[in-house]
Amino acid sequence: MDPSADSVPAPPALDGNHSKVLRHTGEFEWEGVPLEDYKSTTESWRGITRRELLGKRGESHDFHVRYFEIEPGGFSTLEKHQHEHAVIVQRGQGEVQFGCYVYRVGFGDVIYVSPEDPHQFRNPDDAGEPFGFLCIVNATRDRPQAVDGLGACHICE
Amino acid sequence: MDPSADSVPAPPALDGNHSKVLRHTGEFEWEGVPLEDYKSTTESWRGITRRELLGKRGESHDFHVRYFEIEPGGFSTLEKHQHEHAVIVQRGQGEVQFGCYVYRVGFGDVIYVSPEDPHQFRNPDDAGEPFGFLCIVNATRDRPQAVDGLGACHICE
Repeated sequence: MDPSADSVPAPPALDGNHSKVLRHTGEFEWEGVPLEDYKSTTESWRGITRRELLGKRGESHDFHVRYFEIEPGGFSTLEKHQHEHAVIVQRGQGEVQFGCYVYRVGFGDVIYVSPEDPHQFRNPDDAGEPFGFLCIVNATRDRPQAVDGLGACHICE
Repeated sequence: MDPSADSVPAPPALDGNHSKVLRHTGEFEWEGVPLEDYKSTTESWRGITRRELLGKRGESHDFHVRYFEIEPGGFSTLEKHQHEHAVIVQRGQGEVQFGCYVYRVGFGDVIYVSPEDPHQFRNPDDAGEPFGFLCIVNATRDRPQAVDGLGACHICE
């Protein structure tokens, strides 16, 4: 049945545990999905926004899918936590550091941050565009803890 | 510390529960990640490949991240299952159907398939390129069941 046919019900709402499509409107915005300030800027991080894509509107899977953007010169808190990050770069180029490793990453690169590894995401000052990425996490997870230094990660030890 | 410095350890292996980067080499291939035939072609589906990105190499999160491609004229099995799909389109354009809904989707569109909704992904015969998408699922999940028709979905009921 074609969705243009008269008999098709109204498009599904964004909220609820039913099948749905979140429309990408270009430039990494999605219809009906609000832009959220990730948290108020502090000395420990700068210039990050978040969009909650799946997991907080009634979807029942065991994970949350979010889209983050870091503006040029911005960076995330240097932190660690028990839960993992699964990241897929979608826009621009940026840096990710875990332990002693620094990676320059761009579209399509996949990043895994393992439990308790101190890590940080950054977009260089001279970047011409935002650094945007999908970040998938367990639905049930611990709170991040800021750390003073990158210290040792599982690789370095 | 810069990764080019002498003191930096060798890059992390793809296998193991440590932080890592899977390098996108362009054209939706990743260093060290094999291309898998999704399953042998049958009457019920055609022309799909899969790449396991995260979740099967020692990562400990509660979900698996895969990349699928459907060639022009290809389609997935019309099926249903208890586990959900979280899909983000990365390449080309294609169709997704659940219940009575058909959506044409392209880059950045986010698709959620709720439990037990019959669904199918398709790439039209005249498409000029593969239809590629990330698909995230719970690590623990039931097996799909092929269905004869799209039937009712949660929206239509």
